[in-house]
Amino acid sequence: MRMLLDLDTGIDDALALAFALAHPDIELVAVTGTYGNVTVEQGVANTTALLKLLGAEDIPVYAGPQREDFHVKDISQFVHGANGLGGVEVSFGAPPAQGDAVEIMKQAARDGAIIVATGPSTTVAKACDDDDFARNAKIIMMGGALTVAGNVAPWAEANVSQDPAATDFLLRTAQDVTVVGLDVTLRTVLTREQVQQWRDTGSESGKTFAEIADYYVDAYAELSPQLGGCGLHDPLAVAVAIDPSLVECLPINLKVETGEPTPGRLIGDPDRIQEPAETTRVAIGVDAQRFTADFVARLEGLFGELGQRTL
Amino acid sequence: MRMLLDLDTGIDDALALAFALAHPDIELVAVTGTYGNVTVEQGVANTTALLKLLGAEDIPVYAGPQREDFHVKDISQFVHGANGLGGVEVSFGAPPAQGDAVEIMKQAARDGAIIVATGPSTTVAKACDDDDFARNAKIIMMGGALTVAGNVAPWAEANVSQDPAATDFLLRTAQDVTVVGLDVTLRTVLTREQVQQWRDTGSESGKTFAEIADYYVDAYAELSPQLGGCGLHDPLAVAVAIDPSLVECLPINLKVETGEPTPGRLIGDPDRIQEPAETTRVAIGVDAQRFTADFVARLEGLFGELGQRTL
Repeated sequence: MRMLLDLDTGIDDALALAFALAHPDIELVAVTGTYGNVTVEQGVANTTALLKLLGAEDIPVYAGPQREDFHVKDISQFVHGANGLGGVEVSFGAPPAQGDAVEIMKQAARDGAIIVATGPSTTVAKACDDDDFARNAKIIMMGGALTVAGNVAPWAEANVSQDPAATDFLLRTAQDVTVVGLDVTLRTVLTREQVQQWRDTGSESGKTFAEIADYYVDAYAELSPQLGGCGLHDPLAVAVAIDPSLVECLPINLKVETGEPTPGRLIGDPDRIQEPAETTRVAIGVDAQRFTADFVARLEGLFGELGQRTL
Repeated sequence: MRMLLDLDTGIDDALALAFALAHPDIELVAVTGTYGNVTVEQGVANTTALLKLLGAEDIPVYAGPQREDFHVKDISQFVHGANGLGGVEVSFGAPPAQGDAVEIMKQAARDGAIIVATGPSTTVAKACDDDDFARNAKIIMMGGALTVAGNVAPWAEANVSQDPAATDFLLRTAQDVTVVGLDVTLRTVLTREQVQQWRDTGSESGKTFAEIADYYVDAYAELSPQLGGCGLHDPLAVAVAIDPSLVECLPINLKVETGEPTPGRLIGDPDRIQEPAETTRVAIGVDAQRFTADFVARLEGLFGELGQRTL
């Protein structure tokens, strides 16, 4: 399966990137960079650095648009570290590719790639201005919290909160959107013991990813100790792209509230509640055990293999 | 199936009562009166009057507890009319039965009756103080809005909003609760044309119920014209009790937020998100056409039969 990732590379984005590279059935055609956990600039730098670490420098990375008034939130810095990778230094990769991220995304969709967006919807929504993209693109979006509380407000999840109007536009125009939100991603957690398996591969990539992931596990231990690990938000979106059977979905016509009193809230659209929901669905159940086991093992395999290659 | 109804008789409660009486497989053992659409006193008076109209004066009606600071909301008066029955005069029925509504509810559950609660959870929560009731009662609760906006606040549905702590307690203690909320009830609407079928039976009960329901349809036309009729909230809860296959349910551990900023919000409980949800489920899909057709036909049958009886 061809795939384009739209990442705000952050820690779980880094894990999603590694998972896409580790999965034999995914052909990652490009990464577009968005903002959220970090700025576009930092996120793109993180992505290129991680691609180099993972032996995949040939995959092009394009900087996408950033909301003008964007600042990294304190909570994002706390969860992902100031550099987005838990303060872990990763050596520079290739310079970003030249090209318009929106156009690259549209071309990838025309070429049959699935779009997995793990940050705010800014770039994907701009692509949806193109009728052909909106009609034909298959989109998996990590974001929202329908049946559980949000993580930046009781009613709002971080990605959607960054650009509520963009997500709203996406959900009204795109014809094939799967929403993978906190409803399921908070059930798929990575534990410190699992992270250790990566370190135990002894490879540079394994050790680096273990260090990055440990930071994330620590942040979750502080913020949400009841979870017993860190949420695998973005990796689950990649996994659902390649294996939709991992989740149970509710078809529902959605909207995002853009104004007070609950800005950034993803919720059923009352004006379309009686219409069949044919274009959007929200993951509400997940086979957490099957996903996390597969995820941990595939990254372990990738890191081990990379270690062999450099011997 | 034995059934106890806990009603705040209101218009859709009246429709639920008629549906329970019209259904050959339901044996209505008692009605307990709660507050919400109207006061307990008004609701009990409405229930006894409707039971008389429907030839079922033998069914005992018990007044339940009312929150001390309760006042009927303007929106309730608008939707249900000042008397709760759209201003339609219904002649007095039997006086309410003497007895403690909470004890009556507990006894009914011990006798195998399913509890269908269509108002605030005040009475049912008090019954849940009894371990035996909490452990064994089968409860269908009309209330909440999980995947759609609420109707008294963007995050809160009317029944839950009246006594959030009671619903929260119910959801944490009772071992078998099905939540039938706005997620599904706004998809099951009654139209003016369907109401006319009842009037056309020519019976007193048919004409009276048509007059009451028309008021409700009019209120909805004003507040939610996009629905094309009035929501069959409480009747759907009765229908789900007798035929669970009408709805698709999401098993989910729930809580109700009791404080700011979103009091009265029914939502997944973050502290139990990874635990299997074995005691509570929320209806998120409904076979609306099958339910509404059955509902309208059964009431038409009941009204027609009552008309024959009085000839």
